[in-house]
Amino acid sequence: MNTLQPAKYPVKVKAIWYDETLRQICWINTLKLPHEEEVVCSNDPERVVKAIVDMEIRGAPAIGVAAALAIGAYALKIANTPLEAFIDEIKKSINKLWRTRPTAHNLFYALSRMNKTLDESLRSINDTYKLAEKLINEALSIYWEDVQANIKIGEYGAELIPDKATILTHCNAGALATSAYGTALAAIRIAWYNGKNIRVIATETRPVLQGARLTVYELMKEGIPVTLITDNMVGMVMRKKIVDLVIVGADRVTKDGYVVNKIGTYMIALAAKRNNIPFYVAAPTSTLDMDRTIDQVVIEERNPDEVKYVLGKLITVKDVSIVNYAFDITDPDLVSAIITEKGVVYPPFQLNLAKVLGT
Amino acid sequence: MNTLQPAKYPVKVKAIWYDETLRQICWINTLKLPHEEEVVCSNDPERVVKAIVDMEIRGAPAIGVAAALAIGAYALKIANTPLEAFIDEIKKSINKLWRTRPTAHNLFYALSRMNKTLDESLRSINDTYKLAEKLINEALSIYWEDVQANIKIGEYGAELIPDKATILTHCNAGALATSAYGTALAAIRIAWYNGKNIRVIATETRPVLQGARLTVYELMKEGIPVTLITDNMVGMVMRKKIVDLVIVGADRVTKDGYVVNKIGTYMIALAAKRNNIPFYVAAPTSTLDMDRTIDQVVIEERNPDEVKYVLGKLITVKDVSIVNYAFDITDPDLVSAIITEKGVVYPPFQLNLAKVLGT
Repeated sequence: MNTLQPAKYPVKVKAIWYDETLRQICWINTLKLPHEEEVVCSNDPERVVKAIVDMEIRGAPAIGVAAALAIGAYALKIANTPLEAFIDEIKKSINKLWRTRPTAHNLFYALSRMNKTLDESLRSINDTYKLAEKLINEALSIYWEDVQANIKIGEYGAELIPDKATILTHCNAGALATSAYGTALAAIRIAWYNGKNIRVIATETRPVLQGARLTVYELMKEGIPVTLITDNMVGMVMRKKIVDLVIVGADRVTKDGYVVNKIGTYMIALAAKRNNIPFYVAAPTSTLDMDRTIDQVVIEERNPDEVKYVLGKLITVKDVSIVNYAFDITDPDLVSAIITEKGVVYPPFQLNLAKVLGT
Repeated sequence: MNTLQPAKYPVKVKAIWYDETLRQICWINTLKLPHEEEVVCSNDPERVVKAIVDMEIRGAPAIGVAAALAIGAYALKIANTPLEAFIDEIKKSINKLWRTRPTAHNLFYALSRMNKTLDESLRSINDTYKLAEKLINEALSIYWEDVQANIKIGEYGAELIPDKATILTHCNAGALATSAYGTALAAIRIAWYNGKNIRVIATETRPVLQGARLTVYELMKEGIPVTLITDNMVGMVMRKKIVDLVIVGADRVTKDGYVVNKIGTYMIALAAKRNNIPFYVAAPTSTLDMDRTIDQVVIEERNPDEVKYVLGKLITVKDVSIVNYAFDITDPDLVSAIITEKGVVYPPFQLNLAKVLGT
C-alpha cells in the first residue's frame, strides 16, 4: 500500500504520507513553503508532537492523520519491547499527541480510534508485533479514509461550482491540510479537472499566512488561476461583484452547526451574507463533533510572536500587548451548506448533520 | 506662529509641521516607524509628491495639509521669480500634487483652496513676494484649521466614549495622519486626558501595517493601553464581548453618507453591526465630499508588492496575481454617527451632513 499514489486524480502536492521502507511518517514542513520544500520523516512521536505544535504539519485532517501514523510507526519501532512497556509507551504517546492542539476535532477523532484499536486488540492479542500491526493498519485506514473523503468532498463540492465561477477561499484547506486533495481545494481541483473555467481568490490569512504561502503555491502548481488578497479586502472584492461563492474548510463543526475555522472565517461569512454570496464549508465527517455545543469548544490562542513578526521581521513595537486567537466561530445562519464525504448538508444543520452521520 | 506647539493638549507625536526658520515643510517619514524616527524637511513640491505617493506622509488630513504647505513653502522659495513664471510654477506644482493619490478628499479640498487663493490674490496683487505670503498664510490656515478640527473632533468624540470602554480602531487616524491629535485617536486621547480608564484594540491593517506600526507607536507614547490584533480577528474579539465601540477615520465621506476609508473598514462595520456595537467615523468636514455620490469616487489600487512583501520579505510565490485596493466603502446603514469638528452627525446622513455644512 503506497500512500504516495492515491489514484483517480493527479497528486501534485503532498503534505503527509507513510513510507513503507523507512516505516516512518513523512511530511512536508509547511512552515518553509513556498520558498523551500523540506521533507521530514520520523517514527518518533515526540518529533511529530513538535511538528504539530509548531505547525510544520497543520490543517485539521492532516493533524489527525499525522497523529495516527505517528502512533502506528512508533508501535512498529518499539514492537520488540515487553508488552506492558509497549502499552505504556503507546498510551503515553497518544496522550502527548492529544495535548498538542485543542481546537481541530480530527486530532481527537483519530487518536480516539487509535486508543480504541489498542484496547480492543488487547482483549485477544498479547503479541506486541501483532498489536503494532493492528495499530499501523488502523492509522493507514484513517489515512485512506481521509483520501476517499477528499475525493467525495471534491466531487460533491465541484457540483456546486458553476462554470466561469470565481471562488474565494481562506487559509489552506488543500492538499497541504489533508491526506490528498484537500477539502475546499478538492472541490476546486475537481471542478478544474472537469474542465470548468474557474479562478480563485485566496486570502493571505494572517498571522501564519497559510493562504499566501500554501494555497497560492498549491493552486499555481495545478495551473489554476489564483489572485492573492489581504484578509481585509474580502468585503471590497465582494462589493465589486467578482466573487461567486466562498468555500472554506473547518477545524470543528458542532452538532448545532457552528463552524470553528481559521481566524477570519466569521468576517468572510458576514461579508458573504451581506452580499448574497453562497458560503460553503467543506469538511469530512471526522471534523464533526456531535458531543459538544459551541460553548464547550476550546478556541486556541497561540504565541503572540506570530502576530508581532512576519517571517522573522518585527512589524510593531516589540513589547505591545497581543491577542492571537487561531480560530473563530461562524454561526449556522451564515452557512449555506456543509460539504461532507457523505453528501452536501443543508440547514437545519442540527437535524441534517445527525442524519448524514446516521445517528 | 510655531506649528510645533498647538497647545491645550500635550503633543507627543507629530507628523507634519512648518519650520519658520528653514521655511520648509517637515514631516516624519511614517514608512520607517516604529523602528526609526526619520524627519525630512523640504521646500521642493516634487519631494512632497514623492513623500505622498510613497506614503512617507499618509492619512487624509495630513496629505491635504502637506500639499498646501508644500505649495506655500515653494512660493516663498521662488518668490524672486518673474510673475508669469511664478504663477506657472505654482499651478504646475498644484497639478502634480493633485495627481498623487485619488481617494482622500482632503487633498483636493486643500489644493482647491490654494489654487483659489492664488487666483483671487492675482486680481489685486502682482508682487510675487506678496503672493507667496498669501499662499503660505493660506497653507498655515489650512494647517491650523486641521489642528482645531482635531481638538473639536476629539472633544465631541470623547463624549461618546464611556469610562472603562474598550475602543477598536483600524489603520491610523491619529497624530500621524493629521496636523495634531488625529481624528479617531483624538477622541481616544481626549477621553484619556479626561481621566477615563480606557483601552484600545488596534488592527494591524495590512498591507502597509499602519495599525501595527503607527497606532501602536502613538498610543504607547501616550501610555494608553493598546492591544494589537490581525485584521481578521475583529469578528472574534467582538464575539468575545471585549469591544464596546469602534471609531475609525475616513478618507472621504460622500453626501449620501458612504464612508470611504482604509481597506478593511467595511468588514469591521459589518462585524460591529452583527454584534450591536456602535460604529463611529471621525472626520473633519474637509473630508466631506458634497459634490459626488459614491459611484463617482475613485478607489485607489496600489502596487502589488505591498501585498507580496512585508517589510521586504516575500510572503508568497513571487509571480502570483494580486489585487490591492487601498480603500473600501462602508454603507451608511452600518454607520452609527460621523464625528466632525462641527458636531456629531447622526442618520439620515444626506440631510444631516448638509445641515452641519450649512449648505
